[in-house]
Amino acid sequence: MEFTVSQIAELVGGEVQGDKKAKVRMLAKIQEAKNGQISFLSNPKYESFIYITEASAVIVNKDFQARKPVETTLIRVKDPYSSFTLLLEEYYKFVSFQKTGVEEPSFAGEGSIFGQEIYRGAFSYIGKNTKIGTNVKIYPHTYIGDNCEIGDNTIIHAGAKLYNNTRVGSYCVIHSGAVIGSAGFGFAPQEDGTYKTIPQMGNVIIGNHVDVGANTVIDCATFHGDSTRIDDGVKLDNLIQIAHNVTIGSNTVIAAQTGISGSTTIGSSSVIAGQVGIAGHLEIGDNTSIGAQAGIGKSVPKGNVKLMGSPGFELLAFRTRSSRIFLI
Amino acid sequence: MEFTVSQIAELVGGEVQGDKKAKVRMLAKIQEAKNGQISFLSNPKYESFIYITEASAVIVNKDFQARKPVETTLIRVKDPYSSFTLLLEEYYKFVSFQKTGVEEPSFAGEGSIFGQEIYRGAFSYIGKNTKIGTNVKIYPHTYIGDNCEIGDNTIIHAGAKLYNNTRVGSYCVIHSGAVIGSAGFGFAPQEDGTYKTIPQMGNVIIGNHVDVGANTVIDCATFHGDSTRIDDGVKLDNLIQIAHNVTIGSNTVIAAQTGISGSTTIGSSSVIAGQVGIAGHLEIGDNTSIGAQAGIGKSVPKGNVKLMGSPGFELLAFRTRSSRIFLI
Amino acid sequence: MEFTVSQIAELVGGEVQGDKKAKVRMLAKIQEAKNGQISFLSNPKYESFIYITEASAVIVNKDFQARKPVETTLIRVKDPYSSFTLLLEEYYKFVSFQKTGVEEPSFAGEGSIFGQEIYRGAFSYIGKNTKIGTNVKIYPHTYIGDNCEIGDNTIIHAGAKLYNNTRVGSYCVIHSGAVIGSAGFGFAPQEDGTYKTIPQMGNVIIGNHVDVGANTVIDCATFHGDSTRIDDGVKLDNLIQIAHNVTIGSNTVIAAQTGISGSTTIGSSSVIAGQVGIAGHLEIGDNTSIGAQAGIGKSVPKGNVKLMGSPGFELLAFRTRSSRIFLI
Repeated sequence: MEFTVSQIAELVGGEVQGDKKAKVRMLAKIQEAKNGQISFLSNPKYESFIYITEASAVIVNKDFQARKPVETTLIRVKDPYSSFTLLLEEYYKFVSFQKTGVEEPSFAGEGSIFGQEIYRGAFSYIGKNTKIGTNVKIYPHTYIGDNCEIGDNTIIHAGAKLYNNTRVGSYCVIHSGAVIGSAGFGFAPQEDGTYKTIPQMGNVIIGNHVDVGANTVIDCATFHGDSTRIDDGVKLDNLIQIAHNVTIGSNTVIAAQTGISGSTTIGSSSVIAGQVGIAGHLEIGDNTSIGAQAGIGKSVPKGNVKLMGSPGFELLAFRTRSSRIFLI
Repeated sequence: MEFTVSQIAELVGGEVQGDKKAKVRMLAKIQEAKNGQISFLSNPKYESFIYITEASAVIVNKDFQARKPVETTLIRVKDPYSSFTLLLEEYYKFVSFQKTGVEEPSFAGEGSIFGQEIYRGAFSYIGKNTKIGTNVKIYPHTYIGDNCEIGDNTIIHAGAKLYNNTRVGSYCVIHSGAVIGSAGFGFAPQEDGTYKTIPQMGNVIIGNHVDVGANTVIDCATFHGDSTRIDDGVKLDNLIQIAHNVTIGSNTVIAAQTGISGSTTIGSSSVIAGQVGIAGHLEIGDNTSIGAQAGIGKSVPKGNVKLMGSPGFELLAFRTRSSRIFLI
Repeated sequence: MEFTVSQIAELVGGEVQGDKKAKVRMLAKIQEAKNGQISFLSNPKYESFIYITEASAVIVNKDFQARKPVETTLIRVKDPYSSFTLLLEEYYKFVSFQKTGVEEPSFAGEGSIFGQEIYRGAFSYIGKNTKIGTNVKIYPHTYIGDNCEIGDNTIIHAGAKLYNNTRVGSYCVIHSGAVIGSAGFGFAPQEDGTYKTIPQMGNVIIGNHVDVGANTVIDCATFHGDSTRIDDGVKLDNLIQIAHNVTIGSNTVIAAQTGISGSTTIGSSSVIAGQVGIAGHLEIGDNTSIGAQAGIGKSVPKGNVKLMGSPGFELLAFRTRSSRIFLI
């Protein structure tokens, strides 16, 4: 992939000042960009880098006034940051959606339906009556159970496992080793001290533009007709635990190794750092920030707050309100 | 799966009051049950729901006296909770054990032996001299190494990995991405500052009725003849770390993302919440409750205690008593 | 595998005192060794065991003076600990490198190159233009993407996943379910509250003699030409998170469930206990010890320190220094 500066200027609706034929292959931050790369200047704090950058081109605001000589080629646009993220997006599509076709052996159950332009890697497994959208990329060793639905333009990396009845929207990315729809952790204690497993019969519904990190686990809901829900635009990092019947609101971002216990609802547009633990049956409001390693044992539904510290959450919060059925 | 109320009454030995021909397909909590579902009333605290429930039937105590009109059909039994868990169990068997037969391609090494009624999914791998019991369900992408034993009626979900010599009992459920028998973390420090890997030659022995959650890891014991041991009835949630030579006593329940370091023994009938860390070479007694995110650095062998807080455990506990061989 | 005491004495350059024809099959600690096993005595603290051990042979210092009758056979050497670790190493090679050949079905992309004596398990997948060294063992369900390089004598256990462009050195062990090269967690926030995924175009470079534990995740670097780097001799336990652009210096050991955020550098010869969280963009010096469950929010570059406690790290450390691009 190699473009001329003038091709890029056309894509972002910008005006070139400098070498229109300069070639760029990669995107980079301005403080790190090298020859053959393109960057952007949006925050004035980084202005000094534009006078020393080795980047072949830099996207700047159309009103940018250089206070020293600039050697790199400039592309002047209305909003450099938006233009750069547009390029990111185009580049992403370019690198992500090249693979098509079916590698053998691969397995597709009865009644499964496939859209156009899909890739099914060797040793991938699709169950019965599962519906795969257009331009979906299913890497090797992926398991997708029966009665699942995968929306258009979604990428499922090698070895992700989706249990029966899972629904994933469009433009999602599921990374390697992620497990979606595993049985929630629910047991009925018996008088003899043993537990009977409570069958987990619900599913997981994932919206559009959701990323699920490597080896992250999302359990299915307990009862039939219920769903663990990950809404549009949510970004989940690696090794996260999402228990049964949790809801994560749209555009919430969660960092690695955080765990959310059963039936808790997280609002939208929240940012949860790494290694956080959140007890079950809580409500966390919109626009909530939670610091790394925090333990949250009570509901904080009002939103627009920052939560930190590691008080350890209360033992009682660990059991459900139901007196005898034991669901974590 | 659809039953009449009278069929269910027969199964649980109850007496019907209402529509014997009403049909039920699902089980649900009384506060959430809908038409076509069956629930139970055991705790008097939930009595109010029986007057408003949409459930098609509710299992109640034979002495239950309604204080308001009841519209749902009642099934009167001696112990409603036991009857409901019996139904759970029957339902669970029904949904879990439908698959049989071998999907191709799948791999079975020399000398491996299979019981009746098993399911072996496509791309599953069974090593040499491995013995698989009756009615075992092995989902796609499962890896079971050489010289393993899997007991009757056990389910191994897609992509679980069992190293050589692993033994799993009957009626177990191993979820996707679980790794059982990986090498424990042991290294011999050398004078030049490097480490030599200590070969891990023991195995893992898992009892009956054990659940292992998605992406949980259980390391094998260090020396040949030794085992990391998960006893009967233990329930392990997702993303748990169980190090080499650990023993977990029967009917102990451990929530997600907890880690137990090498050679520690956990008693039976204990409840360990999520994100707990327990140092190595400790003894934790029976009936111990440990709160979420706690760090346990000392032995608490007496049992029947509740442990909370996050003191962080001591660095020394992190090394073994052996002065130079380094086993975490 | 069974050797006579005189064969072992020859290997370690020792002198036998006792039964030269005694047979040993296993290695064990002196306090646990049984008949048919060999052990060593290096630390005088363990001397008492040599008088009661059931071991068939014990490696001791050439100057060792017994103060009581010794029944076991002795092998006298210059440095018993070094001799024992040499045996460990030989044993490890013996048990690890027996498998050779290709089990079918397995997949190898165009242009992939394989050394001698390799093992490729059934359902293993090798992408295009990938180079596999001599004596490499690739277990079933392993995924190795395009343009990867795997050095000689490396073992990749069942179901490990290596994304495109990953490089792994010689004598490494990658355990089951490990994911190497997954996309780092980076998103560009948009004015409407959504995030655009920042394409992650770098790779992961792993040195020689590195162990990566089961279900551990190592993300690739963000920009093309950059690498997340795990240097020679590093030992990573299970379920660890290593974010994009992290560097781990040589001979550093990290225990289970620890997480290291993006762009942090860890020095060499450090020991990090389990469940530690380290924020992003930090520098941790050489020979640093970090206690279990600690939260590290600031750089500690000087080295030779012990860090403990769980202060929770600062929220700001959770974002990058770049003002608008959001990389955890």
